[in-house]
Amino acid sequence: MTMSKRDTYTPESLLAVAVQVFNERGYDGTSMEHLSRAAGISKSSIYHHVRGKEELLQRAVGRALEGLFGILDERGARDGRAVLRLEYVTRRTTEVLMDELPYVTLLLRVRGNTPTERRAMERRREFDQRVSELLKDAVAEGDLRADVEARLATRLLFGMINSLVEWYRPDGRGAEGADQVVDAVVRLAFDGLRA
Amino acid sequence: MTMSKRDTYTPESLLAVAVQVFNERGYDGTSMEHLSRAAGISKSSIYHHVRGKEELLQRAVGRALEGLFGILDERGARDGRAVLRLEYVTRRTTEVLMDELPYVTLLLRVRGNTPTERRAMERRREFDQRVSELLKDAVAEGDLRADVEARLATRLLFGMINSLVEWYRPDGRGAEGADQVVDAVVRLAFDGLRA
Repeated sequence: MTMSKRDTYTPESLLAVAVQVFNERGYDGTSMEHLSRAAGISKSSIYHHVRGKEELLQRAVGRALEGLFGILDERGARDGRAVLRLEYVTRRTTEVLMDELPYVTLLLRVRGNTPTERRAMERRREFDQRVSELLKDAVAEGDLRADVEARLATRLLFGMINSLVEWYRPDGRGAEGADQVVDAVVRLAFDGLRA
Repeated sequence: MTMSKRDTYTPESLLAVAVQVFNERGYDGTSMEHLSRAAGISKSSIYHHVRGKEELLQRAVGRALEGLFGILDERGARDGRAVLRLEYVTRRTTEVLMDELPYVTLLLRVRGNTPTERRAMERRREFDQRVSELLKDAVAEGDLRADVEARLATRLLFGMINSLVEWYRPDGRGAEGADQVVDAVVRLAFDGLRA
Protein backbone atom coordinates (compact mmCIF):
# COMPACT_ATOMS: atom_id res chain seq x y z
CA MET A 1 0.00 0.00 0.00
CA THR A 2 1.33 3.42 -1.01
CA MET A 3 1.83 5.88 1.83
CA SER A 4 -0.08 9.01 0.93
CA LYS A 5 0.13 12.26 2.80
CA ARG A 6 -3.04 14.02 3.84
CA ASP A 7 -4.36 16.11 0.97
CA THR A 8 -3.73 19.69 2.09
CA TYR A 9 -3.25 21.01 -1.45
CA THR A 10 -4.72 24.27 -2.64
CA PRO A 11 -5.39 24.66 -6.38
CA GLU A 12 -2.18 26.74 -6.57
CA SER A 13 0.12 24.36 -4.71
CA LEU A 14 -1.14 21.33 -6.65
CA LEU A 15 -0.62 23.26 -9.89
CA ALA A 16 2.98 24.06 -8.89
CA VAL A 17 3.73 20.36 -8.42
CA ALA A 18 2.06 19.42 -11.72
CA VAL A 19 3.96 22.07 -13.69
CA GLN A 20 7.26 20.83 -12.31
CA VAL A 21 6.44 17.28 -13.44
CA PHE A 22 5.24 18.49 -16.87
CA ASN A 23 8.51 20.40 -17.35
CA GLU A 24 10.63 17.41 -16.30
CA ARG A 25 8.82 14.67 -18.23
CA GLY A 26 7.10 16.65 -20.94
CA TYR A 27 3.32 17.05 -20.89
CA ASP A 28 2.76 14.06 -23.21
CA GLY A 29 5.01 11.86 -21.09
CA THR A 30 3.21 12.67 -17.83
CA SER A 31 0.48 10.34 -16.53
CA MET A 32 -1.91 10.86 -13.62
CA GLU A 33 0.19 8.19 -11.89
CA HIS A 34 3.29 10.42 -12.18
CA LEU A 35 1.35 13.37 -10.81
CA SER A 36 0.00 11.27 -7.95
CA ARG A 37 3.50 10.10 -7.02
CA ALA A 38 5.02 13.59 -7.23
CA ALA A 39 2.24 15.11 -5.13
CA GLY A 40 2.24 12.22 -2.65
CA ILE A 41 -1.55 11.90 -2.78
CA SER A 42 -3.78 9.38 -4.53
CA LYS A 43 -5.13 9.82 -8.04
CA SER A 44 -8.65 10.08 -6.67
CA SER A 45 -7.49 12.93 -4.42
CA ILE A 46 -6.16 14.71 -7.51
CA TYR A 47 -9.49 14.13 -9.28
CA HIS A 48 -11.10 15.86 -6.30
CA HIS A 49 -9.24 19.02 -7.38
CA VAL A 50 -9.28 18.77 -11.18
CA ARG A 51 -10.93 16.82 -13.98
CA GLY A 52 -7.58 15.59 -15.28
CA LYS A 53 -4.13 16.55 -16.46
CA GLU A 54 -5.42 18.67 -19.33
CA GLU A 55 -7.15 20.96 -16.82
CA LEU A 56 -3.85 21.35 -14.98
CA LEU A 57 -2.14 22.24 -18.27
CA GLN A 58 -4.90 24.72 -19.06
CA ARG A 59 -4.52 26.46 -15.70
CA ALA A 60 -0.74 26.50 -15.96
CA VAL A 61 -0.47 27.98 -19.45
CA GLY A 62 -3.38 30.26 -18.56
CA ARG A 63 -1.32 31.69 -15.73
CA ALA A 64 1.64 32.33 -18.06
CA LEU A 65 -0.56 33.92 -20.74
CA GLU A 66 -2.36 36.07 -18.20
CA GLY A 67 1.00 37.38 -17.01
CA LEU A 68 2.12 38.16 -20.55
CA PHE A 69 -1.10 39.71 -21.86
CA GLY A 70 -1.42 41.68 -18.61
CA ILE A 71 1.72 43.58 -19.63
CA LEU A 72 0.00 44.97 -22.73
CA ASP A 73 -2.67 46.61 -20.54
CA GLU A 74 -0.14 48.38 -18.32
CA ARG A 75 0.30 52.11 -18.81
CA GLY A 76 3.91 51.75 -20.00
CA ALA A 77 2.74 49.57 -22.87
CA ARG A 78 -0.09 51.90 -23.85
CA ASP A 79 1.24 55.48 -23.62
CA GLY A 80 4.06 57.23 -25.43
CA ARG A 81 6.24 56.63 -28.45
CA ALA A 82 6.21 53.09 -29.82
CA VAL A 83 9.93 52.59 -29.15
CA LEU A 84 9.43 53.34 -25.46
CA ARG A 85 6.40 51.08 -25.29
CA LEU A 86 8.39 48.28 -26.94
CA GLU A 87 11.24 48.81 -24.49
CA TYR A 88 8.73 48.63 -21.64
CA VAL A 89 7.18 45.43 -23.00
CA THR A 90 10.64 43.87 -23.48
CA ARG A 91 11.57 44.67 -19.88
CA ARG A 92 8.28 43.46 -18.41
CA THR A 93 8.17 40.30 -20.56
CA THR A 94 11.61 39.38 -19.23
CA GLU A 95 10.42 40.08 -15.67
CA VAL A 96 7.24 38.02 -16.06
CA LEU A 97 9.27 35.18 -17.57
CA MET A 98 11.54 35.17 -14.51
CA ASP A 99 8.69 35.58 -11.99
CA GLU A 100 6.58 32.84 -13.59
CA LEU A 101 9.51 30.74 -14.82
CA PRO A 102 7.97 27.21 -14.65
CA TYR A 103 4.67 28.37 -16.14
CA VAL A 104 6.24 30.25 -19.05
CA THR A 105 8.69 27.36 -19.60
CA LEU A 106 5.72 25.03 -20.00
CA LEU A 107 3.98 27.48 -22.33
CA LEU A 108 7.07 27.69 -24.55
CA ARG A 109 7.39 23.89 -24.71
CA VAL A 110 3.85 22.81 -25.57
CA ARG A 111 3.75 21.06 -28.91
CA GLY A 112 0.15 21.13 -30.07
CA ASN A 113 -1.00 17.55 -29.52
CA THR A 114 -4.19 18.50 -27.64
CA PRO A 115 -6.79 21.27 -28.05
CA THR A 116 -5.45 22.99 -24.91
CA GLU A 117 -1.92 22.97 -26.29
CA ARG A 118 -3.04 24.26 -29.69
CA ARG A 119 -5.05 27.04 -28.05
CA ALA A 120 -2.02 28.00 -25.91
CA MET A 121 0.23 28.15 -29.00
CA GLU A 122 -2.35 30.30 -30.75
CA ARG A 123 -2.52 32.75 -27.83
CA ARG A 124 1.26 32.86 -27.64
CA ARG A 125 1.40 33.72 -31.36
CA GLU A 126 -1.17 36.46 -30.70
CA PHE A 127 1.13 37.93 -28.07
CA ASP A 128 4.11 37.81 -30.45
CA GLN A 129 1.93 39.42 -33.10
CA ARG A 130 0.99 42.29 -30.78
CA VAL A 131 4.67 42.91 -30.02
CA SER A 132 5.49 42.69 -33.72
CA GLU A 133 2.90 45.42 -34.42
CA LEU A 134 4.51 47.62 -31.77
CA LEU A 135 7.89 47.06 -33.38
CA LYS A 136 6.48 48.02 -36.78
CA ASP A 137 5.07 51.23 -35.30
CA ALA A 138 8.47 52.09 -33.83
CA VAL A 139 10.09 51.53 -37.23
CA ALA A 140 7.44 53.76 -38.84
CA GLU A 141 8.16 56.48 -36.26
CA GLY A 142 11.83 56.31 -37.29
CA ASP A 143 13.15 55.07 -33.94
CA LEU A 144 13.99 51.49 -34.95
CA ARG A 145 16.02 50.25 -37.90
CA ALA A 146 14.05 49.48 -41.04
CA ASP A 147 16.59 47.08 -42.57
CA VAL A 148 15.43 44.04 -40.58
CA GLU A 149 11.95 42.75 -41.36
CA ALA A 150 9.64 43.25 -38.35
CA ARG A 151 8.52 39.65 -37.95
CA LEU A 152 12.11 38.43 -38.12
CA ALA A 153 13.25 41.07 -35.62
CA THR A 154 10.43 40.04 -33.27
CA ARG A 155 11.43 36.38 -33.51
CA LEU A 156 15.06 37.17 -32.69
CA LEU A 157 13.99 39.45 -29.83
CA PHE A 158 11.85 36.69 -28.33
CA GLY A 159 14.62 34.19 -29.05
CA MET A 160 16.88 36.20 -26.77
CA ILE A 161 14.24 36.69 -24.05
CA ASN A 162 12.82 33.16 -24.13
CA SER A 163 16.29 31.59 -23.93
CA LEU A 164 16.14 32.48 -20.22
CA VAL A 165 14.00 29.40 -19.58
CA GLU A 166 17.04 27.31 -20.58
CA TRP A 167 19.57 28.85 -18.22
CA TYR A 168 18.09 31.33 -15.74
CA ARG A 169 17.68 29.89 -12.24
CA PRO A 170 16.38 32.31 -9.59
CA ASP A 171 18.33 30.71 -6.75
CA GLY A 172 21.55 30.21 -8.70
CA ARG A 173 24.63 30.68 -6.55
CA GLY A 174 26.90 33.23 -8.17
CA ALA A 175 24.33 33.70 -10.92
CA GLU A 176 23.21 37.03 -12.22
CA GLY A 177 20.57 38.91 -10.28
CA ALA A 178 17.22 39.35 -11.93
CA ASP A 179 17.71 43.12 -12.39
CA GLN A 180 21.07 42.60 -14.06
CA VAL A 181 19.52 40.12 -16.50
CA VAL A 182 16.63 42.45 -17.35
CA ASP A 183 19.01 45.37 -17.97
CA ALA A 184 21.24 43.17 -20.16
CA VAL A 185 18.28 42.02 -22.29
CA VAL A 186 17.07 45.59 -22.87
CA ARG A 187 20.57 46.94 -23.61
CA LEU A 188 21.50 44.19 -26.05
CA ALA A 189 18.10 44.10 -27.75
CA PHE A 190 17.99 47.84 -28.40
CA ASP A 191 21.65 48.85 -28.68
CA GLY A 192 23.52 45.63 -29.35
CA LEU A 193 26.87 44.38 -28.14
CA ARG A 194 28.94 47.15 -29.69
CA ALA A 195 30.44 49.86 -27.46
CA MET B 1 4.76 -9.75 -41.07
CA THR B 2 6.10 -6.23 -41.53
CA MET B 3 6.89 -5.20 -45.06
CA SER B 4 10.50 -4.04 -45.09
CA LYS B 5 12.20 -2.29 -47.94
CA ARG B 6 15.59 -3.48 -49.10
CA ASP B 7 18.30 -1.99 -46.93
CA THR B 8 20.02 0.51 -49.24
CA TYR B 9 20.97 2.89 -46.43
CA THR B 10 24.35 4.54 -46.22
CA PRO B 11 25.58 5.60 -42.76
CA GLU B 12 24.55 9.18 -43.65
CA SER B 13 21.06 8.43 -44.91
CA LEU B 14 20.27 6.18 -41.95
CA LEU B 15 21.54 8.90 -39.62
CA ALA B 16 19.26 11.46 -41.26
CA VAL B 17 16.22 9.25 -40.58
CA ALA B 18 17.28 8.61 -36.97
CA VAL B 19 17.83 12.31 -36.24
CA GLN B 20 14.40 13.15 -37.53
CA VAL B 21 12.84 10.56 -35.21
CA PHE B 22 14.95 11.74 -32.24
CA ASN B 23 13.82 15.33 -32.83
CA GLU B 24 10.16 14.31 -33.10
CA ARG B 25 9.95 11.88 -30.17
CA GLY B 26 12.90 13.01 -28.07
CA TYR B 27 15.97 10.80 -27.77
CA ASP B 28 14.75 9.16 -24.54
CA GLY B 29 11.36 8.44 -26.08
CA THR B 30 12.81 6.74 -29.18
CA SER B 31 13.16 2.94 -29.28
CA MET B 32 14.92 0.78 -31.87
CA GLU B 33 11.41 -0.25 -32.88
CA HIS B 34 10.56 3.39 -33.71
CA LEU B 35 13.77 3.70 -35.74
CA SER B 36 13.03 0.45 -37.56
CA ARG B 37 9.53 1.61 -38.46
CA ALA B 38 10.70 5.06 -39.62
CA ALA B 39 13.50 3.61 -41.73
CA GLY B 40 11.31 0.82 -43.12
CA ILE B 41 13.96 -1.81 -42.42
CA SER B 42 14.21 -4.42 -39.68
CA LYS B 43 15.95 -3.84 -36.35
CA SER B 44 18.59 -6.40 -37.29
CA SER B 45 19.30 -4.43 -40.48
CA ILE B 46 19.84 -1.34 -38.33
CA TYR B 47 22.19 -3.33 -36.08
CA HIS B 48 24.11 -4.17 -39.22
CA HIS B 49 24.94 -0.42 -39.48
CA VAL B 50 25.30 0.62 -35.85
CA ARG B 51 25.61 -0.88 -32.38
CA GLY B 52 22.47 0.87 -31.19
CA LYS B 53 20.65 4.16 -30.83
CA GLU B 54 23.37 5.71 -28.67
CA GLU B 55 25.84 5.33 -31.54
CA LEU B 56 23.39 7.15 -33.82
CA LEU B 57 23.10 9.93 -31.23
CA GLN B 58 26.87 10.11 -30.96
CA ARG B 59 27.29 10.46 -34.72
CA ALA B 60 24.52 13.03 -34.98
CA VAL B 61 25.72 15.35 -32.22
CA GLY B 62 29.28 14.71 -33.44
CA ARG B 63 28.32 16.11 -36.82
CA ALA B 64 26.81 19.23 -35.21
CA LEU B 65 29.83 19.77 -32.94
CA GLU B 66 32.26 19.25 -35.81
CA GLY B 67 30.44 21.95 -37.77
CA LEU B 68 30.55 24.37 -34.84
CA PHE B 69 34.15 23.76 -33.72
CA GLY B 70 35.26 23.83 -37.37
CA ILE B 71 34.29 27.52 -37.43
CA LEU B 72 36.86 28.35 -34.77
CA ASP B 73 39.64 27.03 -37.02
CA GLU B 74 38.62 29.15 -40.00
CA ARG B 75 40.79 32.14 -40.81
CA GLY B 76 38.02 34.65 -40.03
CA ALA B 77 37.83 33.33 -36.49
CA ARG B 78 41.59 33.42 -35.96
CA ASP B 79 42.91 36.64 -37.51
CA GLY B 80 42.17 40.26 -36.75
CA ARG B 81 40.52 42.27 -34.00
CA ALA B 82 38.41 40.27 -31.56
CA VAL B 83 35.21 42.14 -32.49
CA LEU B 84 35.61 41.12 -36.15
CA ARG B 85 36.37 37.55 -35.18
CA LEU B 86 33.28 37.46 -32.96
CA GLU B 87 31.19 38.90 -35.78
CA TYR B 88 32.58 36.19 -38.08
CA VAL B 89 31.82 33.44 -35.56
CA THR B 90 28.28 34.79 -35.04
CA ARG B 91 27.65 34.77 -38.78
CA ARG B 92 29.14 31.32 -39.34
CA THR B 93 27.43 29.78 -36.29
CA THR B 94 24.09 30.95 -37.67
CA GLU B 95 24.98 29.50 -41.09
CA VAL B 96 26.06 26.14 -39.64
CA LEU B 97 22.89 26.00 -37.56
CA MET B 98 20.79 26.49 -40.69
CA ASP B 99 22.87 24.08 -42.83
CA GLU B 100 22.87 21.35 -40.18
CA LEU B 101 19.47 22.22 -38.71
CA PRO B 102 18.29 18.75 -37.53
CA TYR B 103 21.72 17.89 -36.09
CA VAL B 104 22.13 21.15 -34.17
CA THR B 105 18.48 20.95 -33.04
CA LEU B 106 19.23 17.55 -31.52
CA LEU B 107 22.43 18.86 -29.92
CA LEU B 108 20.55 21.73 -28.30
CA ARG B 109 17.86 19.41 -26.94
CA VAL B 110 19.91 16.63 -25.34
CA ARG B 111 19.27 16.47 -21.63
CA GLY B 112 22.17 14.56 -20.12
CA ASN B 113 20.61 11.18 -19.32
CA THR B 114 23.38 9.12 -20.97
CA PRO B 115 27.19 9.46 -21.19
CA THR B 116 26.90 10.49 -24.86
CA GLU B 117 24.42 13.22 -23.99
CA ARG B 118 26.53 14.48 -21.10
CA ARG B 119 29.63 14.55 -23.29
CA ALA B 120 27.72 16.47 -25.97
CA MET B 121 26.53 19.03 -23.42
CA GLU B 122 30.08 19.42 -22.15
CA ARG B 123 31.43 20.03 -25.67
CA ARG B 124 28.65 22.49 -26.35
CA ARG B 125 29.57 24.40 -23.19
CA GLU B 126 33.21 24.39 -24.36
CA PHE B 127 32.11 26.03 -27.60
CA ASP B 128 30.10 28.67 -25.70
CA GLN B 129 33.12 29.21 -23.46
CA ARG B 130 35.40 29.80 -26.47
CA VAL B 131 32.95 32.37 -27.84
CA SER B 132 32.67 33.98 -24.42
CA GLU B 133 36.48 34.39 -24.32
CA LEU B 134 36.38 36.06 -27.72
CA LEU B 135 33.67 38.40 -26.48
CA LYS B 136 35.79 39.27 -23.42
CA ASP B 137 38.75 40.06 -25.68
CA ALA B 138 36.59 42.38 -27.77
CA VAL B 139 35.44 44.17 -24.61
CA ALA B 140 39.09 44.49 -23.49
CA GLU B 141 39.98 45.99 -26.89
CA GLY B 142 37.25 48.58 -26.33
CA ASP B 143 35.04 47.51 -29.23
CA LEU B 144 32.21 45.94 -27.23
CA ARG B 145 30.25 47.38 -24.32
CA ALA B 146 31.62 46.60 -20.87
CA ASP B 147 28.36 47.12 -18.96
CA VAL B 148 26.98 43.63 -19.69
CA GLU B 149 28.85 40.74 -18.10
CA ALA B 150 30.52 38.57 -20.79
CA ARG B 151 28.94 35.25 -19.83
CA LEU B 152 25.50 36.82 -19.72
CA ALA B 153 26.05 38.55 -23.08
CA THR B 154 27.18 35.23 -24.59
CA ARG B 155 24.08 33.47 -23.29
CA LEU B 156 21.79 36.10 -24.77
CA LEU B 157 23.70 36.03 -28.07
CA PHE B 158 23.30 32.25 -28.30
CA GLY B 159 19.70 32.59 -27.15
CA MET B 160 19.04 34.68 -30.23
CA ILE B 161 20.98 32.41 -32.60
CA ASN B 162 19.75 29.09 -31.20
CA SER B 163 16.12 30.22 -31.31
CA LEU B 164 16.32 29.51 -35.04
CA VAL B 165 15.84 25.80 -34.38
CA GLU B 166 12.33 26.68 -33.13
CA TRP B 167 11.16 28.62 -36.16
CA TYR B 168 13.55 28.53 -39.11
CA ARG B 169 12.46 26.13 -41.86
CA PRO B 170 14.66 26.06 -44.96
CA ASP B 171 11.79 25.32 -47.34
CA GLY B 172 9.30 27.72 -45.75
CA ARG B 173 7.05 29.34 -48.31
CA GLY B 174 7.22 33.09 -47.89
CA ALA B 175 9.82 32.63 -45.18
CA GLU B 176 12.98 34.61 -44.91
CA GLY B 177 15.91 33.55 -47.01
CA ALA B 178 18.94 32.21 -45.19
CA ASP B 179 21.09 35.25 -46.05
CA GLN B 180 18.46 37.63 -44.75
CA VAL B 181 18.31 35.73 -41.45
CA VAL B 182 22.10 35.71 -41.06
CA ASP B 183 22.30 39.46 -41.73
CA ALA B 184 19.49 40.13 -39.26
CA VAL B 185 21.20 38.12 -36.51
CA VAL B 186 24.51 39.96 -36.99
CA ARG B 187 22.88 43.40 -37.18
CA LEU B 188 20.70 42.93 -34.12
CA ALA B 189 23.39 41.20 -32.05
CA PHE B 190 25.99 43.91 -32.67
CA ASP B 191 23.96 47.07 -33.19
CA GLY B 192 20.55 46.32 -31.75
CA LEU B 193 17.07 47.25 -32.90
CA ARG B 194 17.52 51.01 -32.63
CA ALA B 195 17.91 53.10 -35.77
